[in-house]
Amino acid sequence: MSEAVLVEDRIIDTLIRLDPLADLPRTGWLLRGVRPCESIADHSFGVALVAMLLTDALREEGQVVDGERVLRMALVHDAPEARTGDVPMPVKSAEVERALDEVDARLARELLPDEQYSSWREAEAAESLEARIVKAADKLQMMIKAHVYERQSRGHLEEFWHNPKNFRDMDLPLARRVYDRICERAGRERPG
Amino acid sequence: MSEAVLVEDRIIDTLIRLDPLADLPRTGWLLRGVRPCESIADHSFGVALVAMLLTDALREEGQVVDGERVLRMALVHDAPEARTGDVPMPVKSAEVERALDEVDARLARELLPDEQYSSWREAEAAESLEARIVKAADKLQMMIKAHVYERQSRGHLEEFWHNPKNFRDMDLPLARRVYDRICERAGRERPG
Amino acid sequence: MSEAVLVEDRIIDTLIRLDPLADLPRTGWLLRGVRPCESIADHSFGVALVAMLLTDALREEGQVVDGERVLRMALVHDAPEARTGDVPMPVKSAEVERALDEVDARLARELLPDEQYSSWREAEAAESLEARIVKAADKLQMMIKAHVYERQSRGHLEEFWHNPKNFRDMDLPLARRVYDRICERAGRERPG
Amino acid sequence: MSEAVLVEDRIIDTLIRLDPLADLPRTGWLLRGVRPCESIADHSFGVALVAMLLTDALREEGQVVDGERVLRMALVHDAPEARTGDVPMPVKSAEVERALDEVDARLARELLPDEQYSSWREAEAAESLEARIVKAADKLQMMIKAHVYERQSRGHLEEFWHNPKNFRDMDLPLARRVYDRICERAGRERPG
Amino acid sequence: MSEAVLVEDRIIDTLIRLDPLADLPRTGWLLRGVRPCESIADHSFGVALVAMLLTDALREEGQVVDGERVLRMALVHDAPEARTGDVPMPVKSAEVERALDEVDARLARELLPDEQYSSWREAEAAESLEARIVKAADKLQMMIKAHVYERQSRGHLEEFWHNPKNFRDMDLPLARRVYDRICERAGRERPG
Amino acid sequence: MSEAVLVEDRIIDTLIRLDPLADLPRTGWLLRGVRPCESIADHSFGVALVAMLLTDALREEGQVVDGERVLRMALVHDAPEARTGDVPMPVKSAEVERALDEVDARLARELLPDEQYSSWREAEAAESLEARIVKAADKLQMMIKAHVYERQSRGHLEEFWHNPKNFRDMDLPLARRVYDRICERAGRERPG
Repeated sequence: MSEAVLVEDRIIDTLIRLDPLADLPRTGWLLRGVRPCESIADHSFGVALVAMLLTDALREEGQVVDGERVLRMALVHDAPEARTGDVPMPVKSAEVERALDEVDARLARELLPDEQYSSWREAEAAESLEARIVKAADKLQMMIKAHVYERQSRGHLEEFWHNPKNFRDMDLPLARRVYDRICERAGRERPG
Repeated sequence: MSEAVLVEDRIIDTLIRLDPLADLPRTGWLLRGVRPCESIADHSFGVALVAMLLTDALREEGQVVDGERVLRMALVHDAPEARTGDVPMPVKSAEVERALDEVDARLARELLPDEQYSSWREAEAAESLEARIVKAADKLQMMIKAHVYERQSRGHLEEFWHNPKNFRDMDLPLARRVYDRICERAGRERPG
Repeated sequence: MSEAVLVEDRIIDTLIRLDPLADLPRTGWLLRGVRPCESIADHSFGVALVAMLLTDALREEGQVVDGERVLRMALVHDAPEARTGDVPMPVKSAEVERALDEVDARLARELLPDEQYSSWREAEAAESLEARIVKAADKLQMMIKAHVYERQSRGHLEEFWHNPKNFRDMDLPLARRVYDRICERAGRERPG
Repeated sequence: MSEAVLVEDRIIDTLIRLDPLADLPRTGWLLRGVRPCESIADHSFGVALVAMLLTDALREEGQVVDGERVLRMALVHDAPEARTGDVPMPVKSAEVERALDEVDARLARELLPDEQYSSWREAEAAESLEARIVKAADKLQMMIKAHVYERQSRGHLEEFWHNPKNFRDMDLPLARRVYDRICERAGRERPG
Repeated sequence: MSEAVLVEDRIIDTLIRLDPLADLPRTGWLLRGVRPCESIADHSFGVALVAMLLTDALREEGQVVDGERVLRMALVHDAPEARTGDVPMPVKSAEVERALDEVDARLARELLPDEQYSSWREAEAAESLEARIVKAADKLQMMIKAHVYERQSRGHLEEFWHNPKNFRDMDLPLARRVYDRICERAGRERPG
Repeated sequence: MSEAVLVEDRIIDTLIRLDPLADLPRTGWLLRGVRPCESIADHSFGVALVAMLLTDALREEGQVVDGERVLRMALVHDAPEARTGDVPMPVKSAEVERALDEVDARLARELLPDEQYSSWREAEAAESLEARIVKAADKLQMMIKAHVYERQSRGHLEEFWHNPKNFRDMDLPLARRVYDRICERAGRERPG
């Protein structure tokens, strides 16, 4: 997004560009009969909440976390989906992954102001502690949601509990402990 | 899909694999505020109707069309979306297109029996007269739906009428004439 | 529908007339708490899939089936519902049935071009092998859907499994075997 | 419904039998792109409101109205739809009408306790002043709702304003005056 | 609402003011994962049905009940929610209750004609036999609905069965017996 | 919320307590016929986006803003609505406001960990620059959304543009300029 625009337009246009996130469903739930299900914006809100709570817990353990960067990344990590919707990719070769990453990067560039585009890239890189918090929060939100939907008898979510990729912890022991606790509450074994 | 399975299981499993098409929305409508909107199955049904009517009209013109092949292709042309949802691809480099085609082909292979997989491939190739009918019907259904949604004040669909790709005619003069008539009724100029 | 109209208008108007099928729910699911549920168009799409798969299986058994006629009938068999919605008729005297058939026939006549009206009538007559395939597919799709909805905890569908009319097989041994397999998977006894 | 049942069961079972009215849509709105739209229970609630307000106005004019009978009829006038859904009947021969009335009567008998069945029959007969109030209210609610939906840009309701049957006044001058006022507000001419 | 308005406008405006009740959900169900759930209008319709059936049963016991007043109160008891939506108040101090009652009274005054405002006030006072019938019906409808939703696997409603306030009987032994029967059917113990 | 709980449980329970925000609609849209409409979580996500963009713009102007505090407040500012839903309060006396604030405070206390409860209180106080950014963002998101819904023909939102309270700027000149630009784009005069 060109930054030569007025700051007022930058704010309004970014909102309008990301607006579809509130109307677009998280496809994975629909595929399993949760209908209606949360939107991508609902999900992003939840990821930001988890990331904020992880930040607090890590600080209590004595770690230094840049909380603003964490929250900024959480808010924009799914921004490109405002154009493509949420796309489960069940068949991911290295080549496909590279091609889709390229699409996402171009869309992020188009949709976001510079500052937010940087956040999106840092989240994608998944290297900094802050980015790893967001990446872990992305899946933690999903598994807590799966647990809630199951208690509400919404959809058939059995396979969520068997896929090790849904328990991505980004080498954060705290994330691992939260997954363990979710599984315990849901009466499931954690895979892998 | 392995064909060593019982024929009864082949029928049931194919239905179950394609079942999500009835719960998955056509993303393009959601992006523009049509909510709720038609499902991918609703769309595929409409494409089959248009393809059937085009077949009748072409036969009246004296052309020879294999109607069964047309309808078989129409029914399975979006089958891979039962796994990925409907994915608008606003940024399509040749590389991205190739990568996604590969994903679709693998999914079609997994989801469909041999007979249906052949139909899917023929539709993708877009070469035979029958496949071209289906490819044109895919967009004709979309533009007729856009016209209906507009009359019902559902969503902001202006940009649909300005994108030449939405008027794909596959070199079928009949398809061109139908697009012209849709535009006439909608009070728009056809782009390009 | 008068055939004096232009072929372009015939195609567009038929689509517009049948368009409500994508917005109209299958009432039987709503009555039992599946909300939202599939549309009539979703259902018709599924019936066409089953009919196509039955056709393949019957051909493998050596039978001769006109596949185009099967698919054409599947696509239009519920066309009159574009005006009335899907109407469960729990109290069916012979007189009521006759009266409703008459309404349906008049609506089919109004909604469909000649070619499609013939298909609708052949399906209604339920005599040819092709029509019997469609009539069996109509219920097979329904029972597979009931099984899927149950696995997804959508609605209270118990009574579906106790109604012998839901297992209409039109004297096709293949259809009977598929019903048996669905019941087996759903852990139910087939009634009657 | 047999009255030999316990009074507690009579209450609970009547509620359960009529419960689908809250999940079933008014089909006429769906046919014109209002989705989601009001349920049959929403409609019946509105009809009871209008009938109550008409009763007050008629009493102010000096007429004697049995208000309890009016409200009881309004509440159960669409009870049979709990089994069939709301069925627009675009093609109504005398024979069809007779057959459907018979179905409705049988369903009303099955669904309702004696007292409510009597109310349903009185409403159907459409002769008493009280029944005429309900019959007029049935359409008045519909036209006020059409006006509200139009202001909210929901659906394409043009044809509602051209069908004289939608302005059924049951020879009540008050009803006529209310229709006139609705048309005035909606900027339409009243047909016929 | 000022009564100097024309009677036609009084009828139309009251309908329009209460119209949102058909679009507004009963929040308590949404909070527990029933989505979509009944509207406030659906609920009010059900309360009127229960109140009518209680009236019949009390009359059979020899009590004198003004049925018209009962039904009028049932229809307007939630009228203020047309402005605020259905608001569960989990934290109710005496002061909060007083403040909210004041808001409701002002809204009822604005929304309703004189006659209906009187009914609303009588229902709020909860003293007359007729008002007590409506107040009991308000919760009886809710618990029957909870039972129906549970059978349909919609939402997680466990806590409804443990809250004694949901079994408000207004000192009507009949209401108590109906609650007992609902619990018996749902396989639950009645709390308190 | 007692902090003696395990950190893992604190994270999971906070998510579960706030989970209804994704199923609860923003009532103001429903009241005006936008159905379905955004959830409270969708809204909170949007408020966080606006607050983030305002932060960037204020920093460009040379102001010092604690971005983490801004985003933390934006994420939890509507937390109590996870229990009550979104409640428009059209009749607000000082007493009512005080009573409701008390309810909200108690709910915030119950729902949120200490850290988040502090953020909620700071946002409520609306004094710090960071809190004022969030309070302005709360309405800016709403008016941008109104503009988007209008372009999509969803609902009748006219009165939104006439209510000066919808243009709360918290004495931030930047916010005022953004409101001006929204009105300009929507072709409206800003009230007051």
